[in-house]
Amino acid sequence: MRLTRYFLPVLKENPADAQIVSHRYMLRAGMIKQQAAGIYSWLPLGYKVLKRIEQIVHEEQVRAGHIPLLMPTLQPADLWRESGRYDDYGQEMLRIKDRQGREMLYGPTNEEMITDIFRSHVGSYKDLPLTLYHIQWKFRDEVRPRFGVMRGREFLMKDGYNFDLTKEDALHAYNRHLVSYLRTYERMGLQAIPMRADSGPIGGDDTHEFLVLAETGESEVFYDGNVTDIKLGAREIDYDNKAECAAVMEEFTSLYARTDETHDAALFEAVPEERRRSARGIEVGQIFYFGTKYSEAMGATVVTPDGGRVPVHMGSHGIGVSRLLGAIIEASHDDKGIIWPEGVTPFHCGIVNLKQGDEGTNAACESIYKALQKAGLDPLYDDRDERAGAKFATMDLIGLPWRITVGPRGLKNGVVELTSRRTGESEEMTAEAAVERVKQVYAGI
Amino acid sequence: MRLTRYFLPVLKENPADAQIVSHRYMLRAGMIKQQAAGIYSWLPLGYKVLKRIEQIVHEEQVRAGHIPLLMPTLQPADLWRESGRYDDYGQEMLRIKDRQGREMLYGPTNEEMITDIFRSHVGSYKDLPLTLYHIQWKFRDEVRPRFGVMRGREFLMKDGYNFDLTKEDALHAYNRHLVSYLRTYERMGLQAIPMRADSGPIGGDDTHEFLVLAETGESEVFYDGNVTDIKLGAREIDYDNKAECAAVMEEFTSLYARTDETHDAALFEAVPEERRRSARGIEVGQIFYFGTKYSEAMGATVVTPDGGRVPVHMGSHGIGVSRLLGAIIEASHDDKGIIWPEGVTPFHCGIVNLKQGDEGTNAACESIYKALQKAGLDPLYDDRDERAGAKFATMDLIGLPWRITVGPRGLKNGVVELTSRRTGESEEMTAEAAVERVKQVYAGI
Repeated sequence: MRLTRYFLPVLKENPADAQIVSHRYMLRAGMIKQQAAGIYSWLPLGYKVLKRIEQIVHEEQVRAGHIPLLMPTLQPADLWRESGRYDDYGQEMLRIKDRQGREMLYGPTNEEMITDIFRSHVGSYKDLPLTLYHIQWKFRDEVRPRFGVMRGREFLMKDGYNFDLTKEDALHAYNRHLVSYLRTYERMGLQAIPMRADSGPIGGDDTHEFLVLAETGESEVFYDGNVTDIKLGAREIDYDNKAECAAVMEEFTSLYARTDETHDAALFEAVPEERRRSARGIEVGQIFYFGTKYSEAMGATVVTPDGGRVPVHMGSHGIGVSRLLGAIIEASHDDKGIIWPEGVTPFHCGIVNLKQGDEGTNAACESIYKALQKAGLDPLYDDRDERAGAKFATMDLIGLPWRITVGPRGLKNGVVELTSRRTGESEEMTAEAAVERVKQVYAGI
Repeated sequence: MRLTRYFLPVLKENPADAQIVSHRYMLRAGMIKQQAAGIYSWLPLGYKVLKRIEQIVHEEQVRAGHIPLLMPTLQPADLWRESGRYDDYGQEMLRIKDRQGREMLYGPTNEEMITDIFRSHVGSYKDLPLTLYHIQWKFRDEVRPRFGVMRGREFLMKDGYNFDLTKEDALHAYNRHLVSYLRTYERMGLQAIPMRADSGPIGGDDTHEFLVLAETGESEVFYDGNVTDIKLGAREIDYDNKAECAAVMEEFTSLYARTDETHDAALFEAVPEERRRSARGIEVGQIFYFGTKYSEAMGATVVTPDGGRVPVHMGSHGIGVSRLLGAIIEASHDDKGIIWPEGVTPFHCGIVNLKQGDEGTNAACESIYKALQKAGLDPLYDDRDERAGAKFATMDLIGLPWRITVGPRGLKNGVVELTSRRTGESEEMTAEAAVERVKQVYAGI
């Protein structure tokens, strides 16, 4: 993309109403615009990152054998009466009446609807196991929406639901989700620690939240410092293998790690003192096993191998897709702006022309731009007639991990400059070498 | 995808409440499930086609130089009061009050919001031309939602908005949209004829609708039979070239083609009698130029080169993304089921194992499945333990354009069967040759 043809309305001033850094930078980098309390437009740059995050979530869900579909944003109230949650849910549920006076709601989650889909179409144990998920906009009418997309009212969530014949199978689905979530977050450059949590209005006993450590997190967390040394890394996981998924679960959850909701001071005392940590965390996902709570209430049953009929065991599993943008920025920024991890960056590489209009720099920038595109990468070429300082400030603010700077002086010596946003280090090399280096960086991502 | 691991709830019976063939087949093929009047879940097969269509729309918009963003589904009522449409829009607008009593609405379209984004961030002619678009769920509270996704209440639409300094520039944007829409529909295997139309509540003088001819269409259309001979085909278009886009507009709209709303019997008489056609059509898109209607009302102005300030010229341009599934099926089916055009098919090729469990057929099917995947294609392998007849019926119903059938008898002679869904013709060849042929088919798509 050439910047002169793009829509990137960066702000020079810090917006007054933004209290945390991710909100501030998302506004300043022209990523979002507030349209009402807790409701945002995703401007082109923000939309691009949102799509990259959504794509990673899709890929890892499909890899785990889960099947995508899409449920609507609006739901009939009657479905929620069946589970008893229509009255329980309180004021966070946005209730709507259509022109015929029918009671509807903007879905805050989808347990009821997915159970309805299941019971309408599945009747036999032979069709299990089954995990369906979607990525769809939700609405929760928060009293005090704040922190930008971190606590919005209209937000994008991935929610998935497993249907299994037995508790054992459902717990495998639970473990499988844990593994797939770990991989999802790692691909985004995030460390999200699974912590024993409280189930809240979803119900059920088994639940873990995934927390990203950050000073601005809404939850207080307590953990064994060794927890942060565990990584999934590049290991291959067979998602059908129960023992393998259970072992990962065990590895990632046997050390102490809890939110304030489930914190147990006595248990925490058992952690060696030098490894006891307390910090703040941002919740970016949660997994639940809740057994037959919804299947019993709503009649989602299957015929068993011996001809009986039982309610299915279920769980639900969510990732806060739009909130992840905020979490990533909270975890990865400096005082100049955002530092995108390579896995989610809106553009792979910036190109800065230090002397726009100069025949030599223009030609070199064009050639780098085309070479990167030819390699399947998505560069952003700052082709504005602006001072170098303004161009660098924009690139630093929007946080592209790599920048190629092209100036007349370097070109005389046959070199351009390749700069890492994260380290700030620059290296001179030929344009071809810079393109090759950027290709290498992204080859494994 | 292996069918035993997929969620494809096909129905044997014709659903009683479905009046038109696309609605019937979408229900029978397990593509959608109604959740409330005019509100549908997109089951996995339907979701896949929806995504393919969305992807084509995105690609052609980006090719035309238009920039994607995403506006929220809910909008504040005050924005619509500025344009005067809050009171005008009537009962089709779903009006909502949040917990604080603030008036909101579920967006039926986005002229006001995009104008708000523009006026907040753009102030100079130097930032023009600019065209922003999004693909987002909309809601129109139809009195009688019917025909499945063809006339739903919650529906997916691409809506784009151009901002230009002059009427001339805005008319270029109009022509550019016409060209990009023609290409979009052709890639989906559809012929959509641009017809002079009525502007309705959007306002403005210049507007064309795109209509797909089909017996079940909601509009009566009148046209010169030569219109259907015009194709865009593979020609390269420079979307920045005003004369080139204007020439395509001229070519596609100079012959008589109008909906009943704008039909002019006297003009129609001028068409040679043997070329006069009347038929029914399904509207799948519409383009508008409406000048300064919204920019004046909402103060979206820019500084001109000579230092003045003028309201921008705008247009809006929509494609009914979810409705397109219905339109494509109406235009492409037979009495056995859907016939997907290659550009939008949910899976590229079906694989039918005639003797599930047989060592030879299993191995051959696996090898074909993997070879197709390796070629970047997405096959559906019917690995159920079912009779051949049931497998063929499912494949015909869900409409994959190509099927490879593997049976023990053929394998003895070293052949499998490749069948075209459209022609019904089968040909025997080696498995390798069949894979190669399918690869060839999709190479240009």
